[in-house]
Amino acid sequence: MKQYQEMTKEELLQEKESLEAAYKAYQKRDLRLNMARGKPSTEQLDLAMDLLNNVLDERDIIIMSNGLDARNYGGLEGIPEAKTLIASMVDAKPEQVILYGNSSLNMMYDTVARAMTHGICGNTPWMKQENIKFLCPAPGYDRHFAITEHFGIEMITIPMSEDGPDMDMVEQYVNNDPTVKGIWCVPKFSNPQGYVYSAKTVERFANLHPAADDFRIFWDNAYCVHYLYDEEVTIPNIMELAEKAGNPDIVFEFASTSKVSFAGGGIAGMVSSRKNIDDALVSMSIQTISHDKINQLRHCMFFENGKRIPEHMKKHAAILRPKFEAVLNALDRDIAPTGAGSWVKPLGGYFITFETLEGCAARTIQLAKDAGVVMTGAGAPFPYHKDPKDSCIRIAPSFPNLEEITLAADIFTVCVRLATVEKLLSA
Amino acid sequence: MKQYQEMTKEELLQEKESLEAAYKAYQKRDLRLNMARGKPSTEQLDLAMDLLNNVLDERDIIIMSNGLDARNYGGLEGIPEAKTLIASMVDAKPEQVILYGNSSLNMMYDTVARAMTHGICGNTPWMKQENIKFLCPAPGYDRHFAITEHFGIEMITIPMSEDGPDMDMVEQYVNNDPTVKGIWCVPKFSNPQGYVYSAKTVERFANLHPAADDFRIFWDNAYCVHYLYDEEVTIPNIMELAEKAGNPDIVFEFASTSKVSFAGGGIAGMVSSRKNIDDALVSMSIQTISHDKINQLRHCMFFENGKRIPEHMKKHAAILRPKFEAVLNALDRDIAPTGAGSWVKPLGGYFITFETLEGCAARTIQLAKDAGVVMTGAGAPFPYHKDPKDSCIRIAPSFPNLEEITLAADIFTVCVRLATVEKLLSA
Repeated sequence: MKQYQEMTKEELLQEKESLEAAYKAYQKRDLRLNMARGKPSTEQLDLAMDLLNNVLDERDIIIMSNGLDARNYGGLEGIPEAKTLIASMVDAKPEQVILYGNSSLNMMYDTVARAMTHGICGNTPWMKQENIKFLCPAPGYDRHFAITEHFGIEMITIPMSEDGPDMDMVEQYVNNDPTVKGIWCVPKFSNPQGYVYSAKTVERFANLHPAADDFRIFWDNAYCVHYLYDEEVTIPNIMELAEKAGNPDIVFEFASTSKVSFAGGGIAGMVSSRKNIDDALVSMSIQTISHDKINQLRHCMFFENGKRIPEHMKKHAAILRPKFEAVLNALDRDIAPTGAGSWVKPLGGYFITFETLEGCAARTIQLAKDAGVVMTGAGAPFPYHKDPKDSCIRIAPSFPNLEEITLAADIFTVCVRLATVEKLLSA
Repeated sequence: MKQYQEMTKEELLQEKESLEAAYKAYQKRDLRLNMARGKPSTEQLDLAMDLLNNVLDERDIIIMSNGLDARNYGGLEGIPEAKTLIASMVDAKPEQVILYGNSSLNMMYDTVARAMTHGICGNTPWMKQENIKFLCPAPGYDRHFAITEHFGIEMITIPMSEDGPDMDMVEQYVNNDPTVKGIWCVPKFSNPQGYVYSAKTVERFANLHPAADDFRIFWDNAYCVHYLYDEEVTIPNIMELAEKAGNPDIVFEFASTSKVSFAGGGIAGMVSSRKNIDDALVSMSIQTISHDKINQLRHCMFFENGKRIPEHMKKHAAILRPKFEAVLNALDRDIAPTGAGSWVKPLGGYFITFETLEGCAARTIQLAKDAGVVMTGAGAPFPYHKDPKDSCIRIAPSFPNLEEITLAADIFTVCVRLATVEKLLSA
């Protein structure tokens, strides 16, 4: 097979005809496939059913190590056992952890909301400051950007490489501009590229000298234990590095069991310095009396306060790996020979990012949709939904079953190639 | 026994001596009793243990009536079954209900927070308006007032009577002052007095003509099904009345199962017009993907979507009633003959409010504390913690066991009497 960019017009027209035939054949099948959201599959959810059905009828189970009845009010920070569990996931100290409800996204939203209305650690509320900004390494997680957009915070795109965000640019902004208040990071198996921040990148984050006292790194360690292969990938502990660097309060780290136990019924935690936590607790103690400690307790029982998480994640990997590989195989088979895009094989996380030729992403996604394959919307991984090159497509292989994902990937590569050929012909 | 206010100085001194002897005897016992917070007792929490242990391992249990897997992402508004459950508690339509996590307080806080940063239904965010105010019927719930105080909203005290808030004053403020944005209400078995708003009061609330488009009634129906006796007390349905009055968007109603199932692990819902709900969902959909639907499911199974709640509440009443009566009996026995205060016997809810002679509440609470009986702090049921007459004491009989509450009530009446005698002697 010739690379598309080396084809003559005639060859492209011929390729187009053959792709259109394949495309129409798929269309006729009236399929409903979805590679849009990073949802665990039913099979993955089944892995933790014993968590739901562990028996809680003994008094010594219900009364926590601090004497608190898990069923009653109290324990705003979370039960001690759950602090240990979250700490084990991100290699933190339990005393650096507070629990929340079932959603780390909710913690991030509330953390920004608190900063807007009350400021961080005694600083002026962000709503009373003019033109505040967040740095947004992109492609990134659309729901992060949605939070800052919702609060009217200006978003500045920071390019991503396989080592993480462009740190020259990050340092330039953070160390000089006091209106820059935060940065969204997914340091391990980044959403959507699956990149792992290099040790140097983490080190440079920990050693920032922010111009603003109320600048914080929003370190969303969403995929901290979410390996696809036996090969475990580690990143340096940013909390420790930041402390060493004299920056103990620079990090809000987030983690949850949404993709460990249940996406809708897990537990979420925030890791930060005691100063930041005490500051958050001022508002949190007004907001609620306590989060659901019974669900925390169930998680602690099932995962033995975290000890059983690594073995549990291997079961997830065994389900996810073939799905990722089905997509990667289709790309290797259909795209590599044509040069119609590029991708990096992730070692963990929930996504594969496909990079089309410039100007082909939106058209590819539209074609896929019209053939019954829903993809994440074009531009979603960028601030304001604007993909400057119209080339980034987030593929989420987790939810459909293997047969469906294999078919969806086949259709996807047809759409990519068709969009590419159309583009080259129109040039 | 003579009423204290009719006693001579000599009689008072003699009474004081005898009370001090009784007080010191209690002090020597080094007791640790608590009548401070409206926490359910262990015995009450035990009533719903089967909720925790219902078995969820069948696929047809886990998949909701709308096709959603309770364990996965999605279903931000809550599962349909849980909407029915909350609707049954407050006599609403399921489509008027959205679920949240485990805490109605959290919904109220977030509702105020959303109004602060984003405004209500397109109105200017409260943080961008000057000098906004909330009406605070008092005595009221300290955690309500804590929310408005936390956001810097000026609080105006509205006197309470057995019919509810002073509605002349409420109408005067709401209908004329566009800076008045809300009012905190606990319409049924009010916290802390146990008063039930009269039909006329509810009717007048529904027929307000707010000067501000973004005025809302925060209708915290916390004790909607929380009867102490077989006698059920009903209040008119404010949502229906408001709709009839052409005020469909004036109410945010809140309810939860915190004191039905588990104080730390219940489910909470908000009832409002579709317009208000859609407005809230704009922010909520950024804030989280979904709340814990598994806990919603457990509640729906155990309470048969709400049908079993009335019978379940009778079991709570059977535990709570003797505790309330232990306190009321002590007051009848020790206080009534002396005229050292007044109270109203509640038919539901979680509190008894004791009204001392003017200037005796803080001293009574201090005396109780020094004898090992913790009461809700003086002034707590008032905005800014300021009880203008220093006379209001909230008694929470639910948490201690019957023996403890009986003893605590005995000590309490000694403290009340001693504080009263001291006061009369110092006059």
